[in-house]
Amino acid sequence: MLETVIVPRVSETDGAGHINNTTIPVWFEAGRNKIFEMFTPDFSFENWRCIILHTTVDFVSQLFYGQDVVVKTWVEKIGTTSFVLYEEIHQNGTLCVKGNAVYVNFNLQTQSKESIPDHIRKQLEEHLLP
Amino acid sequence: MLETVIVPRVSETDGAGHINNTTIPVWFEAGRNKIFEMFTPDFSFENWRCIILHTTVDFVSQLFYGQDVVVKTWVEKIGTTSFVLYEEIHQNGTLCVKGNAVYVNFNLQTQSKESIPDHIRKQLEEHLLP
Amino acid sequence: MLETVIVPRVSETDGAGHINNTTIPVWFEAGRNKIFEMFTPDFSFENWRCIILHTTVDFVSQLFYGQDVVVKTWVEKIGTTSFVLYEEIHQNGTLCVKGNAVYVNFNLQTQSKESIPDHIRKQLEEHLLP
Amino acid sequence: MLETVIVPRVSETDGAGHINNTTIPVWFEAGRNKIFEMFTPDFSFENWRCIILHTTVDFVSQLFYGQDVVVKTWVEKIGTTSFVLYEEIHQNGTLCVKGNAVYVNFNLQTQSKESIPDHIRKQLEEHLLP
Repeated sequence: MLETVIVPRVSETDGAGHINNTTIPVWFEAGRNKIFEMFTPDFSFENWRCIILHTTVDFVSQLFYGQDVVVKTWVEKIGTTSFVLYEEIHQNGTLCVKGNAVYVNFNLQTQSKESIPDHIRKQLEEHLLP
Repeated sequence: MLETVIVPRVSETDGAGHINNTTIPVWFEAGRNKIFEMFTPDFSFENWRCIILHTTVDFVSQLFYGQDVVVKTWVEKIGTTSFVLYEEIHQNGTLCVKGNAVYVNFNLQTQSKESIPDHIRKQLEEHLLP
Repeated sequence: MLETVIVPRVSETDGAGHINNTTIPVWFEAGRNKIFEMFTPDFSFENWRCIILHTTVDFVSQLFYGQDVVVKTWVEKIGTTSFVLYEEIHQNGTLCVKGNAVYVNFNLQTQSKESIPDHIRKQLEEHLLP
Repeated sequence: MLETVIVPRVSETDGAGHINNTTIPVWFEAGRNKIFEMFTPDFSFENWRCIILHTTVDFVSQLFYGQDVVVKTWVEKIGTTSFVLYEEIHQNGTLCVKGNAVYVNFNLQTQSKESIPDHIRKQLEEHLLP
């Protein structure tokens, strides 16, 4: 499992006083940096691979400015060309958000999906949801 | 159905050259202004009501900077305290993103959900998905 | 002068109840789409030209969610390779923010600045600050 | 001097391939959390104090996704009701952005500025620019 500590920013709150819901996908994406690195080790956008297909988000409990947040990222399933992540956000010991994200290994030059290579598959498997 | 025209911003793109996936929830939320107004006619955050519970997003086709986007918002279902939206984003005649959002009518002062009043229910019904 | 109407979004507010200061550069940039188009008529990032060098922002009056905003953009000065914009944001008849932005005509492939061509210079001059 | 390490996010880049200029004020604001805490120790927005008046930003060198960034925050000047910050962003040993921000100690309830109390003044002085 990948763990990413995030310090909430004032700009990520909204007028209702807590973290705005549109901040959640930003934090989830921030938690995927290590996944992106498996597919694009030099982090260059010319070689970018991970294209998002689908997300679901459950907002369980309100998140606040002023306390660190932990994003937890698991690999739930690995297909031929795509993979599914399961993700949680915790604050102050409480599960606040959970969700899924489906990504495909996409070649932006040829505009076609490609099989996930074995060496990346092995790296993904290290973070499999038990 | 509610229609909101949005002009993509440079800051909403990412290094891969198209609109970043985290921009989509921002545009969907922008398409809900009229819904928020039904619950909070003065748009004040002290009287804010609409709290998001759940979202799903399907990324169907890439979105680009340089051409206007239309967000289409329908009410899919109205429950006792909550309602479900069905939303689409179109660019250049193509359906690019679709999704659902579930909101609850929440009283932030008492921290409890409340029934959707009849006069709001009627306004929501004007935008029901056929 | 270029005028861009912007509808404030919930995600652009912060916990203090008004529009967060980090939203202002986003709105100013949104007001520059027509300027970007002069330099990059196809809006493609491979041919992107406008690189920002400097900004100043004066926060004159608070901005709120619930009422449209107008971004006004003038060209203040045109140099050999760079140009200066003067920009204002108005809400409800009140000047709320004003600022400057300096851009250079930059060739990202050669990583060097280039003279502003005459046909673009003429387009910029149409929006000169009186 | 306050130091804040920030991990760039994909959503903070733009189509031109580097960090978008509108991300910079977000990172600078993230670097001010300790300053905000001096004025509002419980981080609550009802007791919020720091209202921004003015910013300047110099974009010195491009910032990229894939490498950590350090935001450095100094107090440049402390007035009766306001204070000036000097801020820098470094990546890979290079100064990439520098700027100033002017804040006022503002009472949102009475909508009036107030003197900076001595105990806060002392905390600010610990981070004075040499």
